[in-house]
Order: sequence, then C-alpha cells, then structure tokens
Amino acid sequence: MQRTEHHGCHDPHRPETFHVYDVTLRDGSQQEGMQLSINDKLRIASYLDDFGVGFIEGGWPGSNPKDSEFFRRATSGELPLRNAELVAFGMTRRVGVKAADDPLIAALRDCGAGVATLVAKSHVGHVREALRTTLEENLEMLRDSVTHLRSEGMRVFIDAEHFFDGYRLDRAYALEVVRTAAEAGAEAVVLCDTNGGMLPSWMGEIVSAAVGVGAPVGIHCHNDSGCAVANTLAAVEAGAMHVQGCVNGYGERTGNADIVSVVANLELKYGWQVLPEGNLAEATRTAQAIAEITNVPAGPRRAYIGTSAFAHKAGLHASAIKVDPNLYQHVDPARVGNDMRMLVSDMAGRANIQIKGEQLGFDLSDRSTAAAVTERVKERELQGYTYDAADASFELLLRQELGLLPEVFTVSHWTTTSYENAGSDPVSEAVVKLVAQGRTQYFVGEGNGPVNSLDMALRRCLIPVYPTMAGYELQDYRVRILDGSSGTEASVRVLIDTTNGERTWTTVGVGTNVIEASWEALCDAYRYGLIHLLENRVESGEERRLEDAGRTADTTNTDGTRSSVDSAV
Amino acid sequence: MQRTEHHGCHDPHRPETFHVYDVTLRDGSQQEGMQLSINDKLRIASYLDDFGVGFIEGGWPGSNPKDSEFFRRATSGELPLRNAELVAFGMTRRVGVKAADDPLIAALRDCGAGVATLVAKSHVGHVREALRTTLEENLEMLRDSVTHLRSEGMRVFIDAEHFFDGYRLDRAYALEVVRTAAEAGAEAVVLCDTNGGMLPSWMGEIVSAAVGVGAPVGIHCHNDSGCAVANTLAAVEAGAMHVQGCVNGYGERTGNADIVSVVANLELKYGWQVLPEGNLAEATRTAQAIAEITNVPAGPRRAYIGTSAFAHKAGLHASAIKVDPNLYQHVDPARVGNDMRMLVSDMAGRANIQIKGEQLGFDLSDRSTAAAVTERVKERELQGYTYDAADASFELLLRQELGLLPEVFTVSHWTTTSYENAGSDPVSEAVVKLVAQGRTQYFVGEGNGPVNSLDMALRRCLIPVYPTMAGYELQDYRVRILDGSSGTEASVRVLIDTTNGERTWTTVGVGTNVIEASWEALCDAYRYGLIHLLENRVESGEERRLEDAGRTADTTNTDGTRSSVDSAV
Repeated sequence: MQRTEHHGCHDPHRPETFHVYDVTLRDGSQQEGMQLSINDKLRIASYLDDFGVGFIEGGWPGSNPKDSEFFRRATSGELPLRNAELVAFGMTRRVGVKAADDPLIAALRDCGAGVATLVAKSHVGHVREALRTTLEENLEMLRDSVTHLRSEGMRVFIDAEHFFDGYRLDRAYALEVVRTAAEAGAEAVVLCDTNGGMLPSWMGEIVSAAVGVGAPVGIHCHNDSGCAVANTLAAVEAGAMHVQGCVNGYGERTGNADIVSVVANLELKYGWQVLPEGNLAEATRTAQAIAEITNVPAGPRRAYIGTSAFAHKAGLHASAIKVDPNLYQHVDPARVGNDMRMLVSDMAGRANIQIKGEQLGFDLSDRSTAAAVTERVKERELQGYTYDAADASFELLLRQELGLLPEVFTVSHWTTTSYENAGSDPVSEAVVKLVAQGRTQYFVGEGNGPVNSLDMALRRCLIPVYPTMAGYELQDYRVRILDGSSGTEASVRVLIDTTNGERTWTTVGVGTNVIEASWEALCDAYRYGLIHLLENRVESGEERRLEDAGRTADTTNTDGTRSSVDSAV
Repeated sequence: MQRTEHHGCHDPHRPETFHVYDVTLRDGSQQEGMQLSINDKLRIASYLDDFGVGFIEGGWPGSNPKDSEFFRRATSGELPLRNAELVAFGMTRRVGVKAADDPLIAALRDCGAGVATLVAKSHVGHVREALRTTLEENLEMLRDSVTHLRSEGMRVFIDAEHFFDGYRLDRAYALEVVRTAAEAGAEAVVLCDTNGGMLPSWMGEIVSAAVGVGAPVGIHCHNDSGCAVANTLAAVEAGAMHVQGCVNGYGERTGNADIVSVVANLELKYGWQVLPEGNLAEATRTAQAIAEITNVPAGPRRAYIGTSAFAHKAGLHASAIKVDPNLYQHVDPARVGNDMRMLVSDMAGRANIQIKGEQLGFDLSDRSTAAAVTERVKERELQGYTYDAADASFELLLRQELGLLPEVFTVSHWTTTSYENAGSDPVSEAVVKLVAQGRTQYFVGEGNGPVNSLDMALRRCLIPVYPTMAGYELQDYRVRILDGSSGTEASVRVLIDTTNGERTWTTVGVGTNVIEASWEALCDAYRYGLIHLLENRVESGEERRLEDAGRTADTTNTDGTRSSVDSAV
C-alpha cells in the first residue's frame, strides 16, 4: 500500500499535531430536514467524544437561544469529555466595533468553551458585497478578534470562508488573510470550500500556497462536486493537518465531508493513526447511534459503515466469496466495526442461499433443497417481498420449506378502527382473536394508530401464553408503496424491526392493503421471536422459566379471556 | 478555472473517442433492495438514451431468463435508441472450452446487441483461487473470446476485474492482460476497481502504466472508500477515455461511481462536452425519473441533482444570497436542470422567511409580520412540523397569519375501519362528514388501507362541490416516527405529495396518532389545491367553469347527501 509521507505523519502513531475536528452539531445540523434539540446535541457530542475526535464544534453561542443553552449545559457538568475539546463557532467582530465590545465575540468568550472557531472572509467579492466593508477592515476584524480571544486565554481556529474561489479571484488577498490569522495567533487556518465546487486535482496547488505562508492549515470541504472526501485527502497530502467533517456526511445541500470516511481512509489506507488506538472499530456503532438521534435516516450505502457497505448480492461474487472473502473486500469490515453480509435475492442464485442458510444454522448442502428454497424466494420476490433486509422472514420461509416451522399461534380474525369527532382526540383501537397452544385468546388493544393498536391487542393475546415475550419491542416500521409497473401485483411492502433487548430482527409483509401487510410482518416478527425463545429455552434447559411460562399461561388464560371480554365491550 | 488538457480533450466539443458508459441496468441493479422488471429496464434504458450516454449495458443474456428476455424485447423494436449503443455483459469463455462452443458466449453473440463487454480476470489470486486455472489459460480465454466475438462482427470491451489490486500483486501479469485484450481487438480495456478500495492519488501511476501498454483504457469505480467520482476523474486525467458509472450512484455495497456527477464535473469543471449539446440540463429530470422507476428513493443530497443540492437553509447564507445567489453556488443549478431553493426552518431567521414569502407572492416586507410568521414556524417546528419539504403547508400557515386563508370546508367527523377474517380478503373503509360551501356532505369510502379509504371518502364529499378537484391525485405518502427524545411531543409526522397533473405540492401533518397526522396532511393538500383552483378561476374569469361548478354542486348536493346516506348504511 502506498503511503503519503510528510509532516512526520508516516509515524504510525497518532500525530499530536493532527486534528480530527467534527462539525456535525453546527454545519451538519443545517442539513435539510434536520432539527436537533439540546438533548440531541448533548448525546451526539458524547458519542463523538467516545469515538475519539479531537474537537467538537457545538454551535454558535449568542446567535440563538438554543445554542447558548447548549453551551451553558455542556460546560456545567452535563458533557464530561475524555478525548475532545468543545469548540464554540462564531464570526470575526462586526465592522467598526472593537472585538472587546462586540456582543457576539463576548458570547464566545463567556460560553465556557476553551476553543473558538471564527469564520472570516477570504474572498474579496464576499468582503465587498456580503460584508460591505474594505479589504483592510476585514483583515483588521480578523486580527482584532483573534488577538482579543487569545488574550482572554482561548485557543482560536479560523475558518477562511470561500477560500478556494477567493484564491482564484485574488490570490494575494486570500493568502494575506491566512498570514494575518496565523500572525494573530490562530492555531490553524481552515481553508473552506464553502460552496463545495472543488476537485481533488485542484487542491494541491492552492493548499500548498497556503502552507507556504507558514501557517498551520486545515481543510473544510462540502460535497457539491461529489468529491468532499477526496478533496479532504488531497488537502492533507498537500500539507493540511486539520480535517473538518460530519458524521454520516451530514450538512447543508449535498453535505460536508464524511468524517468517518476521511478518518478510515487516513488510518486504513495511509496507515496513520489519527484516533485513539482501537477506536476506529467503533465507527459503525457510533455513526448508527448518531443517526438514530438525528432521526435522519443514514443511508445503507455509506462508505465503510453503511449496512450495505460489505453486503454481497451477485451470484458471481457469492461463489468466489465461498473461496476467500477478502477477494471481494477492500478492508476487513471488523476494522470499522462493520460485518460482511450475504444477501438473498432473485439475482443471488443457489450459492448465496446456501451460504445464508448455513449462516443461520440450516443444512442446505442438498442441491434440490437449496434449489427449492431459491425457487420459493424468486416467486415471493416477484410478489414484492424482499429478503435482502428481512432476515427473519427469510428464516421463516426456510423453516417452512424444510418443515421446521412450529405453529406458535393461529389468527382467527382481526379488526381495527380509528375515528375522531371535531374537537375531541383521535382514537385507534383493535380486536384480535387467535389460538395459541390450544387456548383461544381474544383481546382489544388501543394505540397511536391502527398498526400500533393491532400490536397492542396481539401482545395481550400472546403474553399470557408466552410471558417472556413481554420483553419484545417494535423498534422501527417502514412502509414502501410498490410501483405497479415494477412487475408485482402487490401494492405495499412493510418492514418491521423487532428487538428483545439483545438482538434485533426484521420481518416483511406484502399486500394490497397496508394494514394487511403490516399485520403479516407483525405476526412474523413475534413468530420468529417465539420460535427462538422456545428453542433457547429447550437448549439451555431452563426448567424454571419453562414452568413459570406454563403456570403463568394457565392462570392468565382465564383472566385474559375474561378481561378481554370486559375491555372489548 | 483550471483545465486538464490531454488526448485533445481540451477541445470543447464532444471528443468522438470519449465514451460515457452506463451500467445501471447490470451493476447498478445489484444494489441491495433493488429489483428491476423487464419493463423497468426498458423504460430506464429509454431515459438513458434520451440523456445521451454513449453505451447502455443492459444485462447478462444467458445468465438468467429475465436478462435474455430483456435483450429479445429491446432488440426487436421495443427500445429504439437515438444516442446509445446497447451492450450485452458477459464473461470470457469457460476454462478448456472453445469460445465458439461456449453457450454463454453464444448467448452474447445471438442476443441482438452490437456490443459485448466481457469481464476478465487480471488478478493472479482470482485466476488461481476463483477461476482455478493457469495464468496462461486465463490469457487464452481472453484472447479466444475477444477474437471470436470480433469475428462475429461485434464491438468488444473488456472489464479487467480487480485490476488495481491485481496490479499491486503482480504488475507484469495485470499489464499482460491489458495488452492481450487490446491485441485481440478490444475497443477499450476497462480497469475495474471492483472492491472500490482505491484513492485518487493512487490512480495516476497505475492508469498511466496501462495507457503505456498502448491500449485504449476505461475506468470502472465503486464507492467503498467514498471516492468513486474522484477516482474516475483521476483516471481520466491519467488518460482513461471511457468512464463507467450508474445513475444516482446505484450499485452493490456502497454503489458505483455516480455517472451524472462524473459527466457534470467533466462538462462544467473541465469544460469538455461529453454529452450531446444541451443534454446535461436534463440530468435532474432524468435521474429523478429513473429513481421513480427503480423505486429506490434517490437521496436528496446527491451532488448536482439532489433536491437539496442547491437548497439554502442557514440564515447566515440567506442574507448574503439576497445580495448575489452565485456567491453561494459552485455552478448555476440550471446547467443540470436543478433549482436554487430557500428552505424554511427554525435556523432560517427572518431573511429566509421573507425571501420564501416573496417567492410565493406575499408581501412580508413588514418586519413585524415577518417576525410573527417566523415565531409561528419555530413554534410549529418544535411540535414536529417541518416546512423544509412542505411548501404548501407553509403557504397555508402564511395565509392564516396574514388572514388570507378562505374556509373551503369544515370537517365534522371521520372514522375508518380495517378488518380481516381468516381466509377472506382484508377490507378498509371510512366515513367522512363535512360542510363545504354551506352544504353538509356525508360519504363512505373504501381503499387499500385506512388513509386511502379516508381519501376516497373525502374526495366523494368534495368533488360534488368542487368538480374540477376530481383531477387531483395523491402522488406520494411518507411517514416518519419522531424520536421522543428529539424535543417534540408529537410521535409521528406525515408528508403527502399531491398533483393536479401540472404541478405537485407537499403538505405535512403531525400528531400522536398516524391516522390523525395523515388526515391533517390530506385535508391541507386539498385545501391548498382548492384555494389555488378558486383563485385561478376568478383571475382567469372562467365563468363557464364557475357556473358548472355551482350547478353540478347544487344537483350533486341532494344526490350526494342521499347517496351518502345509502352508502353509509
């Protein structure tokens, strides 16, 4: 593997002078549709610190109440940091005001963070048209602001906004901004490709010029040309020692450079250690946890950490993977805490099905069995089912084909009603009748919608019979309207993620009616859980739990039936 | 702007020798969760041809019935091509069989396409472990296969699989594969970064070495390092004259190079014309249409063509954009058929709200009005509403604040029930009672789920009063479960896209109950449509339609009320 060697960075240990700087909480939160509460920001910051980034840009104190409150809470004990420095973002002082007298500068000084990053104009067009001041005053604003905050004991970084366009327009002035910032005491001058239009082959000359000024240089890229990660790497190769980016590539427009991709490339491809030893293996877990907090779905195809990043579907690949997995992986997924996955699909062919079946602990060495399962999968996928995501439904299908699917319950009927009268709150209720272990269960359930109410009723029917099931929880629910033209009769597909606290499984339902499809996925979710529950119980021979289950079931059965009648009225 | 000049490509006209080669229908369709029917593939190919790519890889005839059928239909009149050549993908002949006798080679020869692309091993490890043959036989398979298909009158490309890893392991052999392919008559030898692990700074040396052999070289990249587009550009700078990629960056694992980003960078940043004149402006429309066919949601943050690619949210930017939009855009969005959008959000501040309001034709110059609207937006977003996407709901909010929201209908109550008895089909029905233009409307509706049935009932209530509304259609329906911890009380957010055939608008609903939230978005969708319908009618003074509406409404009213009673029974 080729390595770029400069700035002592070929040293395999983490270069003290190299900064991994996360801007998720400030620049990242400007992504369309993203709204972070103060609690969200505190939780994300804590994950970033555990991951081991050197700096966490928390927001812009003074610009809005939410960010000010975030810094107050973060610096008063709610955000203990082990690896990272908390950074406050802001602007250089206003035109014609002393930095010491500028309220926004004061907000930075008093926010409790030890580090401030100031955005400064380095593009003459922006100085004149957006800032409406002279080039000299802009430099003075920069000099004054940095000097003041340094004298107040803060570490200071400068974000040189629109640096690359500015350099093209007036190279001397752009470099003068870099020099001024460095001379005033900025710890790094971060060259910002604010509109994201750069290409990697353009970075070298410009970054080298800034490094040539004698300033410590950083890089901040956006993905508008689809090259944010590559531009960041190109800047590092040209001497930048400070990289900014966001988890999951969050950010305005097309997003910021994905900090995880940048770090993974630096550690796994360049062989530099820029995070604390071993932390890169937490990348997938960290990015996923943060995606859950932001509630902005993180794409499955993110480099290194996406759920699809090491997933193999093509039959061609699958057969080779049986020989040697590393023939088809650029790195070992474990290095970033990810896994190699085999997908089941109508393109897969027997090879995947067999590998997948063996992974699940079933013997599919018999060609005709494997062929039968493959046929069944193709048939179902034609109807709109997908087993790429729904591993649990695939196992149920497999068990059915192999005659290994125990009947844990049989549904007689279900119904759900939602209504609202002007002025009153809406109501969703459901009734489910089923037979489990020979006992008829008949319950009503109420919920925040038809599917939720069906889930409640179903749980009330099953828990008396299988008490341990009470620990199961629906984690996610996804609906996809299937395009009629895509060769399937079904109109809607539902995916449900269920967890028992230890592990999560996914089931799929398909139908012309969204409730019907949801009901199928729901029932399969509990079927899968119950089958594994019963098998574990037997394997691990936990007699006590078995008895409990039996006893509770018996007593609860009568109660359950009676109470169901009561509540059904 | 810097330009890369070689191979005469500084010629601003489309270099005859440069190939834009799309692999969406073959490599792209291996993406997790993607399933394309034959009709899907025919429709996508037609969009790609209109867009102006030079080559469309349609699939692998002979490997599965679907692909064989695709080529049969495509080459028998169902896929007239104006710009592109249809390409059939396959492998070099089997070990120890003459190419002329290999059924898979025959399938390529007989599929009706004029061009074949054969994947060949160029990595000694893959030859030995996956192919299980000798290095010499691998070269012979390549030579024999190319020679045979050329002699049958086909143009032939070679995909040199795992070329970059192969080069690192045994450079001489990897280059021997390139030489053999070129000598046998391959029109381009496409260097494939099959596992996607390359970085841009590593491409130059290796691609140059392949070009040095004297072969016409192509490039095929995957995004596993987050650098697929940049790697493709680096290869082009090193002399590759044939680029492969997928629309929307579709593909296995992390996807293939996004062909639109590659082409847009080549045309707008390098100044080469690689598509027919003017076609790049169709990029956004083309990628969106294809995303609708694949039914795999295309991310809003795709470079150049995503709905967010030129969307501005931050108040900081917004105020500067009022001065000059190009200060914050790397290219004019119109060049790729995209638009600059202002987003409304709690981070936006008054500047965005004012610009947005003016775009919608409302006067918000009065600071206090703008402030009041901004306050209301922040308040609603705290409850879980989002106006980034829901422009129509924002206009309704704006109208309410400005006292310009006419009452088009008032709902008295709604109810919806879904049920299924073992063995029978599921049923969803709804009842809606409302008052529109002083008339009580009371109808039942049946649908493929609770929301659909409510929509049907609502339409039956409104169409008698507003007949032209019959043309409205629900286009998309999206549900988001809101994370309780994200500082909002609401539990679910629904977004609905509605179209009248000419334009589409989006509304948002929020509530603790998914049906309640859906109902809110549904009603606002029709409110918005009706308000614009009524205004247009008055503006364009279409008296006839006005009378019709009145007359139909009157007659339908009694019928409507009566029939509604009948059907409600």
